[in-house]
Amino acid sequence: MNIQEVWTKAREVMGPTCRVCPECNGKVCHGEIPGVGGIGSGSSFTVSREYLRSVKVLMDLVYEPAEPDTSLELFGRTWSIPFFMAPIGCMGTNYNGYLTDEDYAEYSIGGMIESGSLAFTPDAFYDELFELQLPVIRAHGGLAVPTVKPWAVPKLMDRIRRAEEAGAVAVACDIDSCGNLLVKKAGKAVYPLSPTAMAEVVRGTRLPFIPKGIMTPEAAVRCAEAGCYGIVVSNHGGRVLEDSPAPCSMLPEIRAAVGDKLKIFVDGGIRSGLDVFKCLALGADAALIGRPYVVAAHGGGKEGVILYSQKILGELQNAMVMTGCHTLADITPDKIRVG
Amino acid sequence: MNIQEVWTKAREVMGPTCRVCPECNGKVCHGEIPGVGGIGSGSSFTVSREYLRSVKVLMDLVYEPAEPDTSLELFGRTWSIPFFMAPIGCMGTNYNGYLTDEDYAEYSIGGMIESGSLAFTPDAFYDELFELQLPVIRAHGGLAVPTVKPWAVPKLMDRIRRAEEAGAVAVACDIDSCGNLLVKKAGKAVYPLSPTAMAEVVRGTRLPFIPKGIMTPEAAVRCAEAGCYGIVVSNHGGRVLEDSPAPCSMLPEIRAAVGDKLKIFVDGGIRSGLDVFKCLALGADAALIGRPYVVAAHGGGKEGVILYSQKILGELQNAMVMTGCHTLADITPDKIRVG
Amino acid sequence: MNIQEVWTKAREVMGPTCRVCPECNGKVCHGEIPGVGGIGSGSSFTVSREYLRSVKVLMDLVYEPAEPDTSLELFGRTWSIPFFMAPIGCMGTNYNGYLTDEDYAEYSIGGMIESGSLAFTPDAFYDELFELQLPVIRAHGGLAVPTVKPWAVPKLMDRIRRAEEAGAVAVACDIDSCGNLLVKKAGKAVYPLSPTAMAEVVRGTRLPFIPKGIMTPEAAVRCAEAGCYGIVVSNHGGRVLEDSPAPCSMLPEIRAAVGDKLKIFVDGGIRSGLDVFKCLALGADAALIGRPYVVAAHGGGKEGVILYSQKILGELQNAMVMTGCHTLADITPDKIRVG
Amino acid sequence: MNIQEVWTKAREVMGPTCRVCPECNGKVCHGEIPGVGGIGSGSSFTVSREYLRSVKVLMDLVYEPAEPDTSLELFGRTWSIPFFMAPIGCMGTNYNGYLTDEDYAEYSIGGMIESGSLAFTPDAFYDELFELQLPVIRAHGGLAVPTVKPWAVPKLMDRIRRAEEAGAVAVACDIDSCGNLLVKKAGKAVYPLSPTAMAEVVRGTRLPFIPKGIMTPEAAVRCAEAGCYGIVVSNHGGRVLEDSPAPCSMLPEIRAAVGDKLKIFVDGGIRSGLDVFKCLALGADAALIGRPYVVAAHGGGKEGVILYSQKILGELQNAMVMTGCHTLADITPDKIRVG
Repeated sequence: MNIQEVWTKAREVMGPTCRVCPECNGKVCHGEIPGVGGIGSGSSFTVSREYLRSVKVLMDLVYEPAEPDTSLELFGRTWSIPFFMAPIGCMGTNYNGYLTDEDYAEYSIGGMIESGSLAFTPDAFYDELFELQLPVIRAHGGLAVPTVKPWAVPKLMDRIRRAEEAGAVAVACDIDSCGNLLVKKAGKAVYPLSPTAMAEVVRGTRLPFIPKGIMTPEAAVRCAEAGCYGIVVSNHGGRVLEDSPAPCSMLPEIRAAVGDKLKIFVDGGIRSGLDVFKCLALGADAALIGRPYVVAAHGGGKEGVILYSQKILGELQNAMVMTGCHTLADITPDKIRVG
Repeated sequence: MNIQEVWTKAREVMGPTCRVCPECNGKVCHGEIPGVGGIGSGSSFTVSREYLRSVKVLMDLVYEPAEPDTSLELFGRTWSIPFFMAPIGCMGTNYNGYLTDEDYAEYSIGGMIESGSLAFTPDAFYDELFELQLPVIRAHGGLAVPTVKPWAVPKLMDRIRRAEEAGAVAVACDIDSCGNLLVKKAGKAVYPLSPTAMAEVVRGTRLPFIPKGIMTPEAAVRCAEAGCYGIVVSNHGGRVLEDSPAPCSMLPEIRAAVGDKLKIFVDGGIRSGLDVFKCLALGADAALIGRPYVVAAHGGGKEGVILYSQKILGELQNAMVMTGCHTLADITPDKIRVG
Repeated sequence: MNIQEVWTKAREVMGPTCRVCPECNGKVCHGEIPGVGGIGSGSSFTVSREYLRSVKVLMDLVYEPAEPDTSLELFGRTWSIPFFMAPIGCMGTNYNGYLTDEDYAEYSIGGMIESGSLAFTPDAFYDELFELQLPVIRAHGGLAVPTVKPWAVPKLMDRIRRAEEAGAVAVACDIDSCGNLLVKKAGKAVYPLSPTAMAEVVRGTRLPFIPKGIMTPEAAVRCAEAGCYGIVVSNHGGRVLEDSPAPCSMLPEIRAAVGDKLKIFVDGGIRSGLDVFKCLALGADAALIGRPYVVAAHGGGKEGVILYSQKILGELQNAMVMTGCHTLADITPDKIRVG
Repeated sequence: MNIQEVWTKAREVMGPTCRVCPECNGKVCHGEIPGVGGIGSGSSFTVSREYLRSVKVLMDLVYEPAEPDTSLELFGRTWSIPFFMAPIGCMGTNYNGYLTDEDYAEYSIGGMIESGSLAFTPDAFYDELFELQLPVIRAHGGLAVPTVKPWAVPKLMDRIRRAEEAGAVAVACDIDSCGNLLVKKAGKAVYPLSPTAMAEVVRGTRLPFIPKGIMTPEAAVRCAEAGCYGIVVSNHGGRVLEDSPAPCSMLPEIRAAVGDKLKIFVDGGIRSGLDVFKCLALGADAALIGRPYVVAAHGGGKEGVILYSQKILGELQNAMVMTGCHTLADITPDKIRVG
């Protein structure tokens, strides 16, 4: 099986919800929620592709050759690639149900470990989704980052406790899902997370805590002050608020505001190793990739996930070779031109 | 009845003048005057949609949750929403006559009061339009802002007197209609309003006076010096001068010039609660919405107007939740990125 | 006869060379030389329309009303409009020969005088064109500006002498025609005009001398130092060099460089009174309009020329009313926004 | 034979690999490698055309006329034109094999000498390509610049030695071909060139050494410090890394960094004498033109190459006349406007 075959297979099984477009850019599926689209016009999804495309990469081949080293320290461990799987759930409502959430948990957690990093796993408005992943995570030595919805603090802490029990290496909270109408319709309350509550959560767990859905330098500073381990700069795949800027476009401001106090992850329209390179040059420590991994899992299960990771890795290595970057630390802002 | 049904009904009854496009943006109807289009190429209408779309909104969910408060103090009263109905008249010439101006007065004045704000009502080149609204305004306790054409001062003062008698809470003057060819063709003279005459008008009425059609900081300062209560930043829906900038694009300059001396309303292409949010972040106190309310009234009468207000309000509340704004005062320029 | 009838008639008689497009913008006819197009891709013609369109005009109606005064002092006389006819010749090669150059001279010189300004008349690679206009100019009291090609100085001075004899009020020299391949092919040499030769020409005639085809502040300063009366900022209708900027886009720099030492005319894509307004706000004293006047003359002879002038004038007056400009001196840079 | 006939003939014989488009801009052939396209989306090829098109040229005809002098000093000799042929090989894989590499060597080397400059000749993953050109170069008095792949230093020096033996005037090294997948697939290792190795190469040959594929000021400075004679600012025709900026867009920064210490060549989308003019104004000493010369050679052999050179030269001379440039040194940044 190769990556082309994975995509061919995915195209056969994913319709009509996801069309497996030549470039996954949010144009065809705009407004489809449930489904995989951006909200309304889809502008908050498409803007990410447009912004990433506008970032130019500067070739530089005058340097001492060496194999590029893509390894990364996070959570006290070393990962071999600087990209992770973004949390996506509800295979039966956002996708066509060809895969169950159990299938996807198995393929994604296992596939990402074999890829050299790990999956952020999802929470949802029905409790089963979060629960069904815990045994899979435990079976894989805790190598995943469970992502919990921004429930009221007691329920939030309860889920974090469950994650701890499963041995998870870290825990995330996608506060950006406040705007997710599906969650609201199900009658389950999700809330913004106050700095006070955030600090309480951080104190209440031994796991590194990573809020997802940070889009401003001000909010990032609040996360740092609350003791968070990192943040995910994200607009929830463009699904919760129209006319958001591209998450990656906010990276320079956010990095300038927090310096090294936070690990910065970013998602939104990342579709190649060159995009990962651009995100790192813009200020991120690592990238999250979402929708394409779902395609990969549909087309090839765990192997599809691994093959897709290898494709992205190969492109990242190539970008590093072509720009004279030996390690991820060499991927600095001067390697790109924006605008 | 729901908002989709209102639009479906409107689509049935409004042709051929207004096509009730998926997005009301001035493209299809450009040059149609009479009709609802922008003048000539329509550039002064379409530019508003383009500009608003280009304004990006920054999500921020790290804050203490609270129900967003959309209330606003104006004219010594509290209104529950920061958007009002813009003055549109001549249902028989600009639209197809399915509604009479009497119908529209009833639906709009009543509907906006029940929405929690009020309607700016129109004047026209035939005297009847202004007159027919006065009893409706009186019957609704004066809860409307009659808008008079920029007639010579005596006639202007006469109309303001009529507005006072009807108990109106304020009075506006759409000086931007100087460029309205229909008005000129009818042989009724309208004029620019000099600072001297403006001061005379302000002194001559106990009502707050609001010139509409201010597009520069210089003109706004003159209005403040003349003692006006507020202004409407407007290019008359793009119907009087080609190649005008978007009214909302002038808000930062105008706010900087007048500070808190004037209440600033703005219109032009506002089509969602997110657009209202953007206008407030750019510097407005409140927004006016015109053409979509006419569609709402055609599709659902007074109930249509209310349903449309509720739709806009819901979107505004959502934008406030997603950006960490508890009150309208929190909707500051740092919540957006322009350009 | 009205202006619509003029255009309808022109559409009947001008094909296939000029299609009398809804907007004369250089797109359809690009590369057609002979013909009326811009050179090559036509970019140096189309850029003028794009630039003018991008200039935004700021409405201002808070002022003491007055009839706008469009009069202009030039050559020691007062003209009632600030736009003139650009020199265009060779009706049989650039157009389809429906009009002769004699016809066009009669219509244009007479029509522009009745419009309240005057025509710049053309020179060409065959001597007859220049000569045939002289009696027409003389018959109209010299009210025209003969434009000579940049011949070697003796021939240039000879033509200027002929212009003096015809009583012309001024004389221009379209040095931009150096790039005109038709001229070169005819074996007649045209040259750039050196500052020294320019000063010699200025000293050698009592007529105000106006080089046409100035596009840089540096060249404008040289013209001022040589004693020229004015310049025409022009790229020869985009017909001599690809990828020229829009002439009007250079006005701010050029005006800043020469101050009031030169009268500045500008041409290129001016199609409305609003465009004339924009050119004046950008720094010009007056505009030249070319191709549309040829259309007007084809569709209505002298009357067509006058009707077109009236159309442009009406639009200019409207722009002045809508922006609070009483005189041309009020059309300052703060009335527009560029970009 | 004229240049139109050359192109007509090329269109007959080059399909389907090269379509001989009206403008060779990388749109139709994007992603075709082998073939002549840019990698992937083709963005690194198309960006060059877009950037060059956006550079505006300022006409200036107020100067003392003189024949433009396009001569250039390089390698201790005088060349009559400031553009050279870029190295392109593998006529049988990148093109359709209508010409052999031997044919192309003969046409290109001979044709460029008669054009007044010379050809940069190619290397490839099979040794024969480099070797087959050496006798042609020798037969033409060494008037060519052999370009070697960035092999390990011993093999690189060996090829340079072969070039010296053939009497070449200089030698180049297209380090940008590190990203060329065809080279890698053939199992031949190419590498970035370290500053140390570069200095070793420079010391090891009496020929001027010119690395090709420099895109940053930092890399250019390293080349200067290593003693290189010049550099080619190039992104390998957009074939090795997606989302590269246009090479010509980097010229101002690179020139500012190295001053006169390096001769700067540039390639990428140069399609006219006006483009050559723009590149020189942006900071280059000379331009390289690639794909169009291959078309010219297919359509007219050596004569096609010469005719194409004459076309480019004529356009360059015209641009110099129209901008008041007597020599190439007059083509300064103030002759253009960027953006």
